[in-house]
Amino acid sequence: MNLPLGYRYSAMYAGIRAQPRDDLALIVSGVPAAAAGVFTENRVQAAPVKLCRRHLRASRGTVGAILVNAGNANCATRTGDRVALASCREIAKRLKLPPAQVLAASTGVIGVELDFGLIERALPQLVAGLAENRFSYVARAIMTTDLVPKEAFAEVKLRRGVVRIAGMTKGSGMIQPRMATTLGFVLTDAHVPAAKLRPILKRTIERSYNRISVDGDTSTNDTMILVANGCSGVRPDPKELAAFENGVAEVMEALARMIARDGEGAKKLVTIEVTGASNSDAAAAIARAIANSPLVKTAVAGSDPNWGRILSAAGNAGVTFDPAKVDVRMQSVLVCRGGLAAPFSEDELKKKLDLPECTIEFQIRGKGKGQARFWTCDFTEGYIRINASYRT
Amino acid sequence: MNLPLGYRYSAMYAGIRAQPRDDLALIVSGVPAAAAGVFTENRVQAAPVKLCRRHLRASRGTVGAILVNAGNANCATRTGDRVALASCREIAKRLKLPPAQVLAASTGVIGVELDFGLIERALPQLVAGLAENRFSYVARAIMTTDLVPKEAFAEVKLRRGVVRIAGMTKGSGMIQPRMATTLGFVLTDAHVPAAKLRPILKRTIERSYNRISVDGDTSTNDTMILVANGCSGVRPDPKELAAFENGVAEVMEALARMIARDGEGAKKLVTIEVTGASNSDAAAAIARAIANSPLVKTAVAGSDPNWGRILSAAGNAGVTFDPAKVDVRMQSVLVCRGGLAAPFSEDELKKKLDLPECTIEFQIRGKGKGQARFWTCDFTEGYIRINASYRT
Repeated sequence: MNLPLGYRYSAMYAGIRAQPRDDLALIVSGVPAAAAGVFTENRVQAAPVKLCRRHLRASRGTVGAILVNAGNANCATRTGDRVALASCREIAKRLKLPPAQVLAASTGVIGVELDFGLIERALPQLVAGLAENRFSYVARAIMTTDLVPKEAFAEVKLRRGVVRIAGMTKGSGMIQPRMATTLGFVLTDAHVPAAKLRPILKRTIERSYNRISVDGDTSTNDTMILVANGCSGVRPDPKELAAFENGVAEVMEALARMIARDGEGAKKLVTIEVTGASNSDAAAAIARAIANSPLVKTAVAGSDPNWGRILSAAGNAGVTFDPAKVDVRMQSVLVCRGGLAAPFSEDELKKKLDLPECTIEFQIRGKGKGQARFWTCDFTEGYIRINASYRT
Repeated sequence: MNLPLGYRYSAMYAGIRAQPRDDLALIVSGVPAAAAGVFTENRVQAAPVKLCRRHLRASRGTVGAILVNAGNANCATRTGDRVALASCREIAKRLKLPPAQVLAASTGVIGVELDFGLIERALPQLVAGLAENRFSYVARAIMTTDLVPKEAFAEVKLRRGVVRIAGMTKGSGMIQPRMATTLGFVLTDAHVPAAKLRPILKRTIERSYNRISVDGDTSTNDTMILVANGCSGVRPDPKELAAFENGVAEVMEALARMIARDGEGAKKLVTIEVTGASNSDAAAAIARAIANSPLVKTAVAGSDPNWGRILSAAGNAGVTFDPAKVDVRMQSVLVCRGGLAAPFSEDELKKKLDLPECTIEFQIRGKGKGQARFWTCDFTEGYIRINASYRT
């Protein structure tokens, strides 16, 4: 799978985080690119989130570069807005871009001042290091408690040629030691205007990032940016936009699944499939309630085919359904039929539940067409260990 | 503190749970008593919950006896409704009560048939054992993963004499091995009609049981019953009802705090106080968001003065407030002023956070009058250990 054309990447250690691992990264498009962003709905918003919103508005969705740092969320600090703006201006000057075409994203500790001096001193080397083949360097630099870097790729064949889509993301529950954050950047060389990117991003996020849960917390810094620089020379015609959107969705869904699988302390990826709800919102609400239930997640950790907790969690979704019409399957084994215990071999199912992937199917019999898929992870003692530890 | 007059209690081991500990209990009022009940809002409701609603309606809020069992939730089973009804009828026959004046409550595993034979065989001994001084036997019999029995008492002096209030409750997150349940019974010898008890129960629950959280799961069996048999001979006059309500609230709040403190795996009771919100609903929403955040609860477990997580959790409450006007105190130490880090001694605060009680104050400066108090517990590896274990 090839990277999209026309992008360069760089990453380095600027001294923002304590451990000597790359913590500052830059993504640059060779030409001004169309962009759309979706940001945290938390009432408390980090400085780079506010800056991204402002810049995307001012530039009417045009982006030249994205600066990302790990190790400091640049949130709830006195100098946050100034540091974010000064960083973007410095990048803009060096890359000869209007400042509004530079975006910023941060992840890390909140409430600690981000030292602009560290960024200022690092920028010459960061810009000098830009290269087309350093995509993975950036994906690594934005990691925090993540155990693995998260990248996904797609190619979409259109009538006039191929367009490439590459995505990277980070997120694992929360950042040692203070914050949960998801950052994601999806880049394509398709030629798609910002006005078209926005609804595509909104819809694909709905069925990917909005369908995962590690611990139910939404960070102050969540940022997802979709960039299309047109360097493939291929512009999807109106009928082909759906195919392009499917490619974006495929990348976004793969990234979201990787976050759920890499949830802090997680040993298992859990896929929840709800069918037969009155509509898709109702299905998603039931799936989310199951995914967010600590009782369900601990049962999965213990390989316990505990369908009572699943039924009860669904009952808390705030959605109307008849429990007597519910069938539940775990690892494709029917454990609950019509809201009652179904006969199954506990020993055999427990063995299946020891596998690293677990599927829970929640099926409401009847005419309802609403369905939803949701991803989460099991809930282990490792989560507590990671999150209860003192700041170091 | 004296028990309310006119009640008798009994408890015994009927063989419903595996461990040989009392699992069947009976509360009887010597005279027909006024009663009000509040039940789970889970869409999936256990048979005894449905029976209680029916009986309270049919009897117009009159109760003579309450049968409680632990070890089986009598939920999501084929015979559940029949077993609950037959049990009440059997009690009614032996105590010469109309069946609608007998209520039932269950807690334990769901999806497993409750054997009526066990109850039928136990009832003669259970009824024979009724005695005025066995209140604590019942409080013990309804325990599941609870580490301690939970009782609270109050006396209220009214113009015409003293009325006594006694409450018992259970709940600790979830019952080994399948379900989270809260049961609560508050008995008084005041003479108060059911029509007055209902709003009193509703209001006092709002500021007690509805202000605690262990793991955010709501069970299929949650039941709270307030009974007033009038045996004190004292009827609060209309102006005294507020004093009576305060007594009930005191008992309910004490019981609720005990549940939070005894949360599964918990080492610390956490009290969250929100002030300055636009109204009390907004304050409660913020307090609940902080109480339900696994990131806040793990930080408390680790004695980490991690105010960033508190601010971020509040930002997820779905309530409007200006983060720049927020002050946060932990153990009365100012850790965040105006949404920014406040200077404090980490070492000293960590020592204070090692205490078994933790207070988090979240204060929004300005004219808002909304305030709320909420209780939860810290989130430790013990919670996971308890909930991930196989069914035994």
